[in-house]
Order: sequence, then structure tokens, then C-alpha cells
Amino acid sequence: MKNQISIKEISKKLKDIFPQVADKYEIISLKSNYSEVKLLSNNKNLRPGNTISGPSMFELADLSFYIAIMASTDLGDKSVTTNVSINFMKKPLLSNLLAISQIKKIGKRLVVGDVQILSEDKKQTYAQALFTYSIPRN
Amino acid sequence: MKNQISIKEISKKLKDIFPQVADKYEIISLKSNYSEVKLLSNNKNLRPGNTISGPSMFELADLSFYIAIMASTDLGDKSVTTNVSINFMKKPLLSNLLAISQIKKIGKRLVVGDVQILSEDKKQTYAQALFTYSIPRN
Amino acid sequence: MKNQISIKEISKKLKDIFPQVADKYEIISLKSNYSEVKLLSNNKNLRPGNTISGPSMFELADLSFYIAIMASTDLGDKSVTTNVSINFMKKPLLSNLLAISQIKKIGKRLVVGDVQILSEDKKQTYAQALFTYSIPRN
Amino acid sequence: MKNQISIKEISKKLKDIFPQVADKYEIISLKSNYSEVKLLSNNKNLRPGNTISGPSMFELADLSFYIAIMASTDLGDKSVTTNVSINFMKKPLLSNLLAISQIKKIGKRLVVGDVQILSEDKKQTYAQALFTYSIPRN
Repeated sequence: MKNQISIKEISKKLKDIFPQVADKYEIISLKSNYSEVKLLSNNKNLRPGNTISGPSMFELADLSFYIAIMASTDLGDKSVTTNVSINFMKKPLLSNLLAISQIKKIGKRLVVGDVQILSEDKKQTYAQALFTYSIPRN
Repeated sequence: MKNQISIKEISKKLKDIFPQVADKYEIISLKSNYSEVKLLSNNKNLRPGNTISGPSMFELADLSFYIAIMASTDLGDKSVTTNVSINFMKKPLLSNLLAISQIKKIGKRLVVGDVQILSEDKKQTYAQALFTYSIPRN
Repeated sequence: MKNQISIKEISKKLKDIFPQVADKYEIISLKSNYSEVKLLSNNKNLRPGNTISGPSMFELADLSFYIAIMASTDLGDKSVTTNVSINFMKKPLLSNLLAISQIKKIGKRLVVGDVQILSEDKKQTYAQALFTYSIPRN
Repeated sequence: MKNQISIKEISKKLKDIFPQVADKYEIISLKSNYSEVKLLSNNKNLRPGNTISGPSMFELADLSFYIAIMASTDLGDKSVTTNVSINFMKKPLLSNLLAISQIKKIGKRLVVGDVQILSEDKKQTYAQALFTYSIPRN
């Protein structure tokens, strides 16, 4: 992990990079190759039946994985999503959601890992995803 | 294809079901097992470097596949996304995007197919996805 | 978990169902929604550079997930793979490999979960996959 | 496409690289970013109910995509599979299968595209996959 990077620093960076979305999310935990990010759900995330939409869960998963990369390598900011595979298991009712990202490999070009989308108490799994990001090579 | 369903009817349905998102999209073409849907991009879809975000492309692909299902089976409205695999190939600059969905199989429980995300003139491919939706069984 | 099903029983079943492949694999551990299966690698699994081929890892992952399903539901034998997404992270040299399968959801129609492909000592991850199986409905 | 490379040349190369598998497959068509490869099915590819196994279809798809890369870039031989997402739609009975690979992007590091697994007469789709290969960078 890059030495002193903290939740506070990355939260500030995100506000600069993604002003449209940053205040919908809160970083809960940050370690090397690992992040927990919370989606502060609101009506805009809903689908019929008051369930949270697939694209909202996708955005949460994607942001959480990006944050884990930023915390783990200096080139993280410039990394881009190249592949995502996501299984939706259960539709969450309107509630905050938690994404837990685990990086399994940081290679020269690719970062690979997985994301779980859980209820805030971590008792229910709503979705599970594999992510690949491409990182720039100097 | 269900007999008389038209772009107009489905557009109206979408407004009822997804009032938050329906006016960002326009159905361009609709056939049995096939749809073309346009994302009317705006600043909210952007990422740094003025590129359209992955989650915006995911939402476009998901909606376009859902529309193709609605046009192809009576149970389409109640179908839900179960799996998506998406490859992002190139970052689009701010511009309208086109999603072309092709359903390959409508089974008793699952609908399977693919989506291409293209530039409006269809000359550039930005992303490619496989979708599986689950449909309710009576 | 189905009550008394044991490694011995399932190993015997596999021999009946897949006589071509069963003796290349060994069930190491079996719990509800969980299996560990070992690939006894040999020259037939190789690619240039003496690495184990992607299709060999795919077969190991698929079989291991199937075994976890057989141990977890009575309808397991008749389940079929509907979707797999797999990330290959590192090429294993000729050696036995371990697949650890975890089922996250057993629904009425679909079983969803993930598989890790590891070195026998579990220190190295070679591949990671998401699986969806379809189970017959009575 | 690399200038003079022919089906004959690539078939010979495959025999050198994959002596275990090359005679199970036949290259039917080869163009820039495109291949058609036939699996000459036999009993070893079977599962209960006399259907062709998922891993056999995976191997066919993977080989067909690799052949399309070999025909399209000089670095193709050394490319390796990094991600595959595959949807199985229907179980084929014992019969030859055709894989049609289309490369959508050859980047500096990644090759991305899709594969269809069809019946020999192209009338039935059995599976559909997205592939990403990594190519070495000089």
C-alpha cells in the first residue's frame, strides 16, 4: 500500500475527480488491496417495487474497486475498467449498501479482483462481481 | 414478437416504470429479439477527460436489453437482470451512444443475448456485453 | 446440506456420471455450499512453456462447483452450467491445482457462486471465476 | 492481417504448439480479425445424455479466438487468455461444432472480441462468449 494514503485523502481526491457522484458514497475501510465503500441510497437508485437498480449496484462496485486500486498503487488514479462480470442474486429494497473489494493481482498492466455487494450489516449478499482494470505503464 | 407492440407503446411504458431515466433514452428501432436504443448524453454521464462513464454505458446496455425483451415476450416487464459481462474497449468522448441488443435465446426461465455499445454512426465500438435476464414463470 | 452425503458417495457418483474425467480429480473437502477439489495434473493439461492450460482450469472449476451443488441440493445431479466468467491471473507450471467453490445462493432455478483456482498449498491464486448453474424445477 | 499467413501455416503451427489437441480441430475460414474453427467431436467430449461438455466448448472457443489472433498480429503466438465470459444456451448432442471468432479490438496490450459456438450448419447457437487476451509488448 502506498504509505500514508488515508480515507480522508482519497475521499478528497474523489470529490475532485467525480464531483457528480462522490457525495453519494462513503469510504468505510481501506487497506492494501481492500476497500469497503457504502452507497447512501436514495430515491434516484430505485426501480419498480422500490428495489435498488442494477446500474446503481454496478456503479457502487466499480467505484469501490477503483478506490481499492487508488489505495494500492500510485498509478491507480489513471486506471480504467476493462472488464466486469456481475451476478445479481437478490434485489435490495431501498437501503444503504456496502461494497467490499478485494484485489487479487496487481500486474504490470492489469489489476484483477472481486467485489461483493452486501447489506449494511453484511448478512445478505445482493451481488458479486469480478473486475479487471487496466493501469497505464510508464 | 408480441403482435402490435410499438416503439410508442414501450416508450410510454418505460416512462411509467422508470420515470427517473426514461427521458435520457430514445428507442430507435424495435424488432423481435432486437432493439436499438440511444443514450442522449449529458454532463452527468461524464468522467475526467470528458469521457462517458462505465456505469452510464452499463445502464444504457441494461435498458436496451430490457426493451428488447419487452418487445419479444409478454412476461418481459417483470424480467430482472441476473448476469452481465461487459468489456469496455474505448472511452467515448461526450456524445450520444447507441446500444444494439440481440436476444439469442428466450427460454422458459432465462433470456440470453448480447449488446454492442456503438457511436451514433455505428462506426466505433465502445463496449460489448453478454446479458442474462430471468423471467417469471407462471 | 443433504444429510448423509459424503465425499465417498459423491466420488462414486462422479465415476458413474463422468467416467472419462473422474480419476483426474480428488474431492478434498465437502460442506454445505462448499467444496475443495484437486486436479491431479499430467502432461495432457499442458500448454507451451509447461503451463497448465486454461481449458484444464475451466474444467476443474466447473467440476468443483458441480460437486458443491451435488452436496447441497437433491436436484444437483441434473443441474447444468449456464454462465461462467473467469479471470486467469497467472499461468501455473505443471503441478496439482486446488479449486475452492463457494455457493452464494441456491434459488428455485439458479445456483450462483464463485470458484478460486489455487496452488495446492493455497498460497498462489491462478484464476477466479463466477458460476451460474440452472437446476431443474419439479 | 499479417500478409501471407494461411490456414495451412497456422494449422502446422498449432500442431507444433498443441500436439495434444490440434488434430481434434480444423480451421475452416481465416480472415483478418476472424476465424471459423470446427471441433471434430468424439466420445471424449461427452457428458451424460450424450451432450457435449461445457469444457469442450470452452476449449473450442478459446482455440478459435487464439487462431483469430495469430492470423491478425505478429505477437499472436505469445498471447494468453486473461478473461472469458461464456453463456451456455443449449446442450449440443454429439456432433461437430463450429466456433466463429470476431476480434473487435487489437490494442497495445489487449485483444478483445467474441465467439459464437454453433451447429455445423450455423442454424443453432449453443454458446456465446466474450474473450480478452493479453499480448506481450516489446
